[in-house]
Amino acid sequence: MVHQLRSIQTRARIIGAAVEQFIRFGYEATSVDEICAAANVSKGAFYHHFPSKQALFLALLQDWVQELEQSLTAISQEVEWVPQRFERLADRLQEVFKQAAGQAPMFLEFWYQATKDPTAWRASVEPYQRFRSIFVRWIEEGNQQGSLKAVNPDAAAATLVSLGVGLVLQVALEHQGLDWGTIPRAAVKLLLEGMSTPQAQAGQ
Amino acid sequence: MVHQLRSIQTRARIIGAAVEQFIRFGYEATSVDEICAAANVSKGAFYHHFPSKQALFLALLQDWVQELEQSLTAISQEVEWVPQRFERLADRLQEVFKQAAGQAPMFLEFWYQATKDPTAWRASVEPYQRFRSIFVRWIEEGNQQGSLKAVNPDAAAATLVSLGVGLVLQVALEHQGLDWGTIPRAAVKLLLEGMSTPQAQAGQ
Repeated sequence: MVHQLRSIQTRARIIGAAVEQFIRFGYEATSVDEICAAANVSKGAFYHHFPSKQALFLALLQDWVQELEQSLTAISQEVEWVPQRFERLADRLQEVFKQAAGQAPMFLEFWYQATKDPTAWRASVEPYQRFRSIFVRWIEEGNQQGSLKAVNPDAAAATLVSLGVGLVLQVALEHQGLDWGTIPRAAVKLLLEGMSTPQAQAGQ
Repeated sequence: MVHQLRSIQTRARIIGAAVEQFIRFGYEATSVDEICAAANVSKGAFYHHFPSKQALFLALLQDWVQELEQSLTAISQEVEWVPQRFERLADRLQEVFKQAAGQAPMFLEFWYQATKDPTAWRASVEPYQRFRSIFVRWIEEGNQQGSLKAVNPDAAAATLVSLGVGLVLQVALEHQGLDWGTIPRAAVKLLLEGMSTPQAQAGQ
């Protein structure tokens, strides 16, 4: 039990140190040795958790994707009225942006490596496809319940995902100078208004 | 005259070759020698046009920014009704995406270098600020003419720019597999519907 707890802590420490190094020096320029030194762990401990630097990189991406996907699934199950789902998502995003704005440059590493390496590409692109599928379902359900207009579900879902990655990119480049305490929520609400039926808007 | 024309051609050939090399191997891994070889020009010709690899990189970014900014200025002057400006912008974007989808990975180079180098950062971020200012003015004018709702202009402008960069990022990562012949236009129209007054929507 104590051993397990320590192992989880070590993993988290390696990940935290790696993110810091990747953001400061870039993924390619960072070595396992440097991550170990920054995390104050042995190389043995590192390789116990991650077979390689790339495995750590992909685990990082996967952790983040899993969290967002679980949020989307929870919202789907808890909320039936689709415009309200988007409102929930907007609130959730607002929270994520507040907490994780400093880590946004890490996503530039994911995207950049995705254009250079097929494994990183697959790991980056597959989540977008899953997110789009979830949004397509939301939009189709909204259509059936009369809360969303008959928009093209594929184009609207692609718009939502593009807006999401665009916001992360903007926060990565302009952490200061923009009001990130309001923009993500306002952005999702603007899109939502474009998709909602007059009835749904009147009911809000 | 002939000399001038040849000089313009040489510059264009250097830029074309550089974009290809940057997209294939990355900005950092590409040397001036390699660009010269790919463009079939001498180093003297290269340095006649660009003092350094970074200068070429920044000129590339500037060329692109200038073109988009001129489009926005032309639209502002030619079209008074703000929703119609956004329609024009949507059409223009659709065209750009069709022509330049293969060059989208170049933007990942711009953004990536922007997180690593202060000069690249300034050159990347300043255009976004100018684009946002233009959109803020459009939104305020739309408010005054009764075509746009009283949305928060700063948040809406940031949303538009985020959506724009997000679309470029998505096309860079997923050139295939998504219908880029319809998405950019549909995306801008969705946002526009969220911002338009009922009167403006009825008039469309």
